[in-house]
Amino acid sequence: MASPLVTLTTDFGAGSPYVGALKGAVLSVNPAASLVDLSHDVPPQDLRFCSFLLCAACPYFPSSALHVVVVDPGVGSERTILYVQTGDLRLLVPDNGCWTALAKRYPAPPFVVRLQERRYWRASVSSTFHGRDIFAPVAGYLTLGLAPELLGPHIASWAELHLPEPQISSGVLEGEVVFVDDFGNLLTNIGGDTYRRIEGSVRSISVNGQQVNQRVLTYADAPTGTLVALISSVNTLELAVVQGNAAHKLGASTGTPVRVACDA
Amino acid sequence: MASPLVTLTTDFGAGSPYVGALKGAVLSVNPAASLVDLSHDVPPQDLRFCSFLLCAACPYFPSSALHVVVVDPGVGSERTILYVQTGDLRLLVPDNGCWTALAKRYPAPPFVVRLQERRYWRASVSSTFHGRDIFAPVAGYLTLGLAPELLGPHIASWAELHLPEPQISSGVLEGEVVFVDDFGNLLTNIGGDTYRRIEGSVRSISVNGQQVNQRVLTYADAPTGTLVALISSVNTLELAVVQGNAAHKLGASTGTPVRVACDA
Amino acid sequence: MASPLVTLTTDFGAGSPYVGALKGAVLSVNPAASLVDLSHDVPPQDLRFCSFLLCAACPYFPSSALHVVVVDPGVGSERTILYVQTGDLRLLVPDNGCWTALAKRYPAPPFVVRLQERRYWRASVSSTFHGRDIFAPVAGYLTLGLAPELLGPHIASWAELHLPEPQISSGVLEGEVVFVDDFGNLLTNIGGDTYRRIEGSVRSISVNGQQVNQRVLTYADAPTGTLVALISSVNTLELAVVQGNAAHKLGASTGTPVRVACDA
Repeated sequence: MASPLVTLTTDFGAGSPYVGALKGAVLSVNPAASLVDLSHDVPPQDLRFCSFLLCAACPYFPSSALHVVVVDPGVGSERTILYVQTGDLRLLVPDNGCWTALAKRYPAPPFVVRLQERRYWRASVSSTFHGRDIFAPVAGYLTLGLAPELLGPHIASWAELHLPEPQISSGVLEGEVVFVDDFGNLLTNIGGDTYRRIEGSVRSISVNGQQVNQRVLTYADAPTGTLVALISSVNTLELAVVQGNAAHKLGASTGTPVRVACDA
Repeated sequence: MASPLVTLTTDFGAGSPYVGALKGAVLSVNPAASLVDLSHDVPPQDLRFCSFLLCAACPYFPSSALHVVVVDPGVGSERTILYVQTGDLRLLVPDNGCWTALAKRYPAPPFVVRLQERRYWRASVSSTFHGRDIFAPVAGYLTLGLAPELLGPHIASWAELHLPEPQISSGVLEGEVVFVDDFGNLLTNIGGDTYRRIEGSVRSISVNGQQVNQRVLTYADAPTGTLVALISSVNTLELAVVQGNAAHKLGASTGTPVRVACDA
Repeated sequence: MASPLVTLTTDFGAGSPYVGALKGAVLSVNPAASLVDLSHDVPPQDLRFCSFLLCAACPYFPSSALHVVVVDPGVGSERTILYVQTGDLRLLVPDNGCWTALAKRYPAPPFVVRLQERRYWRASVSSTFHGRDIFAPVAGYLTLGLAPELLGPHIASWAELHLPEPQISSGVLEGEVVFVDDFGNLLTNIGGDTYRRIEGSVRSISVNGQQVNQRVLTYADAPTGTLVALISSVNTLELAVVQGNAAHKLGASTGTPVRVACDA
């Protein structure tokens, strides 16, 4: 039988001692858990980056996986920790909205439990490292088969992360860059389906005042160095430079506006 | 049954081909070993960083884990390689003291074996990569159940890493920063218990001439941008900027003095 | 029984959401696969780095491992994806030559299949992320025991990566740096066996006009800061600074010429 999968997403930094402590604290409860690093390089306390990452990665995992997310600027405060089931996904997250965009992809409302039962936490809980002292042991117990209902009360409200939505007015669709990958490709919040619907009437796409003139299916469809628009692997409008770095070329980063002008 | 756990700590760099070679060389002896990356981003040959990392991470693992540490500036020289049992931890380390601070946490003296039996090493041992050629296969055999006594002679002396201890004189406790995490939080060598004992009489805490005026239990206890003192998750005095970077704000790094002045 | 091993090598960046998606897509086909990160920090689209990494790491793995390599500047184009058996190694690679240097180490010609059977791919294949949509599920099926012959036709020609070979003329062996590791050590394309054969007559080694005067067996054989030549752990001529950074000291990087002058 396969070992139970636990994915780990943090902003600790891949080389941080805290990553090791987190892993150890899961394995000390369930040495048979199979740990999978998603990313430890979420920029510190960057909930939008974290939200994008969870949307881009978690849906591809088998439903047996438990996704543990410790991007937690509110650690030690009154913010709570949640166990979430949404679609066929299961997560342990701080109650800071990092998971709400992911949950919107599933029609049914999520099932959410607020962690309260200290018997599943480390005996001594620090004020600054709930990843190690609460998330990790709870993850260990869940992989051993603990019923989530035993962790605490079922709840019906939680923090939401409000992400920017593209705006349409007088023939212009105005969105923004929501993620820059390591190649410098710019992923926007303009949905691929939305873009395909209006594509016939698109007059221009511009980023920071620079026009993107070529629409391709994939990078290899245009010569090296060409600035291109395409539909990304997460089905959104993406801007890229073939074998180059669009973020550098356009001086763009997360939050940079992207304008799609259409014929009237 | 759970796969035997082997943690890996190196200064190779997470993207280095040497990391892959190390992993392969463990798995070629025991394909069932379960590898856990602690960190491959220890700064090159930085034994103090390595020592801090082992103290912060290893104690959280189950005792079944074997911790393999290849931060090894003396590779190929007369320095030897050690198998160490301390408390319920088991390690394979170069004899350079990277583990001695960790061992001091346990009352009983460590059990130490010097690796000598070449039959458990790769047939051909390079001069510059003992991680792959000695540590890895020995780790593989240990996870297969090999008795450590078969690796070489039991020894009673080894290299020690001398780490700075805080000094007290005329009402001033003078310590230093021993670790800067990826958030820029400054962890000092001033023990949390020591600090709590003197806390009633503390007049000021200063780092690089700047005063830290607020004592909190956790980051969320003060507004964004506040410079605060707290007890870290490894039970030492920590200095932080709420949702900011104390190392940048204070111009501090490992070795920066931290002064705690007390009332007479 | 050991879980089937799948190693992952990409240029996505270790913190990228794409790494998580890739892992999930393997595990969703075979949750029992044991994933091993080789490196996600191959410089973007750098096939020479990738080729070096595969040569330095893959041969140390047990033959049961499947090596999945997604360094794929041609994604979505007419370039194909290959399943390769060479020596006792098994790989899934883009047809861009990243694996051909590795295969040259084995006397027998490789067995190569071109991936064609879409039933083993994700139902919906994006134009830009074949790692997630083709490589990953195929890797999952292979670890479940799928016969590689079912993936597509056996083929006899493929892209080759042409790597620079050292040149000899009038007593000078001229090679180049082919890899700089995280310590700043310079690994060259001059084979260790070649160097040992001519060593008796070597008059000088120079890099960027600077002489390397000391030949050692390992770093610890010379004082800190000394510039030395040695045979690397992958059996090539290596230039290093003892406990320092040769790349910085010599202003050298991949492609920098290395000259070995011999007596007539």
